[in-house]
Amino acid sequence: MENNEIGISENKINKKTKSKQIPLKIIPLGGLGEIGKNMTAFEYDNEIIVIDCGLAFPDEDLYGIDIVIPDVTYLIKNKNKVKGIFITHGHEDHIGGLPYVLKQINVPIYGTRLTLGLIEGKLKEHTMLSDCTLNVVEPGELIKLEQIKIEYIRNNHSIPDSCSIALHTPIGVIVHSGDFKVDFTPIDGKVMDLQRYAQLGKKGVLLLMADSTNALHKGYTMSEKTVGETLENLFSRATGRIIVSTFASNVHRLQQISDCSIKYNRKIAFSGRSMENISEVAMELGYLLIPEDMIISLDEIKNYPDDKLTIVTTGSQGESMAGLSRIAASTHRHIQIIEGDMVIISASPIPGNEKAVSNLINDLIKKGANVIYKSIEDIHVSGHACEQELRLIQALLKPKFFIPVHGEYKHLITHAKIAESMGVDKSKTFILENGDVFELTRATGKVSGKVPFGRVLVDGMGVGDIGSMVLRDRKNLAENGIITVVIAIDIRNKIIISGPDIVSRGFVYVRNSEELIDEVRNIVTNVVEKCLDRNITQWAEIKNGIRREVDNYVYTKMKRKPMILPVIVEL
Amino acid sequence: MENNEIGISENKINKKTKSKQIPLKIIPLGGLGEIGKNMTAFEYDNEIIVIDCGLAFPDEDLYGIDIVIPDVTYLIKNKNKVKGIFITHGHEDHIGGLPYVLKQINVPIYGTRLTLGLIEGKLKEHTMLSDCTLNVVEPGELIKLEQIKIEYIRNNHSIPDSCSIALHTPIGVIVHSGDFKVDFTPIDGKVMDLQRYAQLGKKGVLLLMADSTNALHKGYTMSEKTVGETLENLFSRATGRIIVSTFASNVHRLQQISDCSIKYNRKIAFSGRSMENISEVAMELGYLLIPEDMIISLDEIKNYPDDKLTIVTTGSQGESMAGLSRIAASTHRHIQIIEGDMVIISASPIPGNEKAVSNLINDLIKKGANVIYKSIEDIHVSGHACEQELRLIQALLKPKFFIPVHGEYKHLITHAKIAESMGVDKSKTFILENGDVFELTRATGKVSGKVPFGRVLVDGMGVGDIGSMVLRDRKNLAENGIITVVIAIDIRNKIIISGPDIVSRGFVYVRNSEELIDEVRNIVTNVVEKCLDRNITQWAEIKNGIRREVDNYVYTKMKRKPMILPVIVEL
Repeated sequence: MENNEIGISENKINKKTKSKQIPLKIIPLGGLGEIGKNMTAFEYDNEIIVIDCGLAFPDEDLYGIDIVIPDVTYLIKNKNKVKGIFITHGHEDHIGGLPYVLKQINVPIYGTRLTLGLIEGKLKEHTMLSDCTLNVVEPGELIKLEQIKIEYIRNNHSIPDSCSIALHTPIGVIVHSGDFKVDFTPIDGKVMDLQRYAQLGKKGVLLLMADSTNALHKGYTMSEKTVGETLENLFSRATGRIIVSTFASNVHRLQQISDCSIKYNRKIAFSGRSMENISEVAMELGYLLIPEDMIISLDEIKNYPDDKLTIVTTGSQGESMAGLSRIAASTHRHIQIIEGDMVIISASPIPGNEKAVSNLINDLIKKGANVIYKSIEDIHVSGHACEQELRLIQALLKPKFFIPVHGEYKHLITHAKIAESMGVDKSKTFILENGDVFELTRATGKVSGKVPFGRVLVDGMGVGDIGSMVLRDRKNLAENGIITVVIAIDIRNKIIISGPDIVSRGFVYVRNSEELIDEVRNIVTNVVEKCLDRNITQWAEIKNGIRREVDNYVYTKMKRKPMILPVIVEL
Repeated sequence: MENNEIGISENKINKKTKSKQIPLKIIPLGGLGEIGKNMTAFEYDNEIIVIDCGLAFPDEDLYGIDIVIPDVTYLIKNKNKVKGIFITHGHEDHIGGLPYVLKQINVPIYGTRLTLGLIEGKLKEHTMLSDCTLNVVEPGELIKLEQIKIEYIRNNHSIPDSCSIALHTPIGVIVHSGDFKVDFTPIDGKVMDLQRYAQLGKKGVLLLMADSTNALHKGYTMSEKTVGETLENLFSRATGRIIVSTFASNVHRLQQISDCSIKYNRKIAFSGRSMENISEVAMELGYLLIPEDMIISLDEIKNYPDDKLTIVTTGSQGESMAGLSRIAASTHRHIQIIEGDMVIISASPIPGNEKAVSNLINDLIKKGANVIYKSIEDIHVSGHACEQELRLIQALLKPKFFIPVHGEYKHLITHAKIAESMGVDKSKTFILENGDVFELTRATGKVSGKVPFGRVLVDGMGVGDIGSMVLRDRKNLAENGIITVVIAIDIRNKIIISGPDIVSRGFVYVRNSEELIDEVRNIVTNVVEKCLDRNITQWAEIKNGIRREVDNYVYTKMKRKPMILPVIVEL
């Protein structure tokens, strides 16, 4: 286990301690069976360490939900054991859960410089930075806890300063790839540390957990540099403004866009909150190098001719509130599309966003822009390893056990098959689910239990207060609207003294539906009078009657099923 | 204009009539700037003919809407002029609007046999078949009206019996491609009538309107036959049940699946309403040829061994209520996934359905199925022409004018450029929008006006009664829920006599939010008491006060904006 060759020192692990008998528990809390909210806990004896703490963006059935984070009940219960959260890189699906989780378990955060720079901004927004402990780690560095040592190993990804993590545990070495690709010609020249991978493999890796996002794709992921070649070509042709939209965190992409702009003497303006924030952090920390005089604010773009301008904006996913969508909808405060604009969408639609991106492209073309997007030019590359790269790390690490991570079920199972074809024993390959407690020893692995897991929904300031009942109601309201029925009853004399008042929302346009509303009023009156005649004064029963009869009538008449909300005022 | 060669007779058009002076009006009512609800009106003098009458499926922002149909106000206003609706083929986006439109203008329908067979089923469901006039047309046939002659020309598409339409008008020949591809080896052996295309081109085509769906794709669309080869390969390997999901209307696909089943001695069961309906119509009319003893019902599948079964089902788009989704969710009455099932999804996700299809695949794999889908095998081909086929019909027809149809803006503009590169004058290429009135003469074309157009929303039995206000409410309800505030006021004595009662839906889980609800109650009481103290008895003002104060409180406290619905009971 000596690895002085790459500059880190490490004591030999005493192989004779009794701790060898204890299995290591691996508990994925997010990122399995899904893309997003990556988070995994590793527990050995009295130590828990956590890798990543991400968020997921809500599916369309999560009406009104802003973001989704992992359920960390297990960590809260074992608060005292948790020694730190070790972040692999600065993407939202790896850091976005931190502000919510740190409010419940305030433990030290570890990560590389850019990663922590981005986390800082996030914690500042939540006004909790001063309460948190952030520890900068250099790639190659080793953090020593009592039982586990955590080693950061440089990899390549669509954000700089991304790392894999090797855990040196009493039962053996575990490598977690993090999100990665193998880029032989990365923009910053820092190729993934394949030598360290090889060295670990040579010495023996007990378990590999690796990124499955692109497991279904054959071949290799293209180098980020290929995008630069396409950009160069486009910049050389452009005669008007260039508007480029990409992921704000893809700092190397921003660098390439900037380099082209500088070459063609175009000033660079950043648009969109995350674009402004991240470019600032990246420049401050030296990850994005742009001469100061080349950067202008959006207010200044009017002072420059069109062919001397590059605007770099958010919104490549067609998000309705982001920069490019606002530009396309003519609601952007500074930028309107003009004939001759070249709009480069330097991204692929994330699954689920295809239609929004397609609408965005149509709107931009209609306004006169020349729109360049992935399906017509090679203007984006993925940050995730394809099949051949996955095979490469198997060949370097030769792990005894394998757990595919970061992916939907179809990705995981395909990745498992790749590992098996590379020599991992089928009985030592495990497809886990979030919440599984996986117990690993030197010789065996098994799922031994389950901890609380799942989606914690964040809606505004509410974290976890939206449950399935509220969501079911929202779905019903969305599809059918609501009819509120208010009726005041004199309970002593058993008569209706006011109403029924019928108020609907999202159901019909009331002015065109007076007849229908009148009929509903009659039906309610009848139901209530009948109940009162029969001495039924249990509101629940009367309300059920109202619901049943109105539902019946509306469905028969219109084939619609609005929510019916009876309110009885008792006097 | 003689075309006896292909067996249709036609009188020479008298080129000397004064009618030459009248321009032909072309009015697209759907299908431009969108995929779906295709419908175009052609008006010459006192004759209007309509090509197609389709529906579109709702985007996700159309909460609760079942389908979308074109606005036909213009046709209703000019009812007496409309001579017929000429259908190119039997897909929903070409026939789905008929039941709604025919209720308003009952004109004869023309179409080929299978097309009418499918329309019949549709009209039967709406119990209006007996009121409608359906005229069967053979490909190659000419229908003569007073001024316009309508010629059906066989093409290829993903449904049999699909046709292009040539309109022989006093000002010249107009060709409408309909949806098409060029399949040199179609399953029924009937290649698109390229000779007739060539002949029309030789004699002179004034205007071509052509399908733009695949204009962004280079090269050629593969032949339907290539899918058969993949199927054959899969069937030869399968050892358990085969479950194939595809579009029910793709009768040639059904034929190929059946042929493989017969070859491998598998009984065939159809599952899903549209699959059962369409296969029945297609067999009845002789478009789908399966020996009777090879077809079994779903009830009978239990009587056969797994490797003697093919189940053909709907649900290839991940639609939650369709066959395959119910199978994946274990809610299908007859079919549960068992280890060893091969599930073939013989379709591509339609834009917008990517995520649903991906979820479906994951669910099926998790249940133990071997799932074969487009990205891992060539198990589907498109029904629409790619760039080279679009060039081919330009070369055959050499139209003077060109209007790209059936596509979003990006498709239309790309198709226009293809036409221009094939020799159509840029000034004679027009990108129209739905509702445009395009006036065409022998020499010129221009947009001269606009007729009512747009999306008519169908929700249950309601056609067009859901407007933007109801949709806005549904969106708001979906994202934020609703708080209903009911308060009874004694108006004479200016006191609250009951309430406020607070009832919420889709907002918070009430049992965990008693404090919040109590506070809302206090706020409402305060607002109302203050109003009554100041002698304000205008309900609108009191309601506004309630809305403002509750909104304020909830937003400050929770960063949420539920709909607030105050109801005042006046006693």
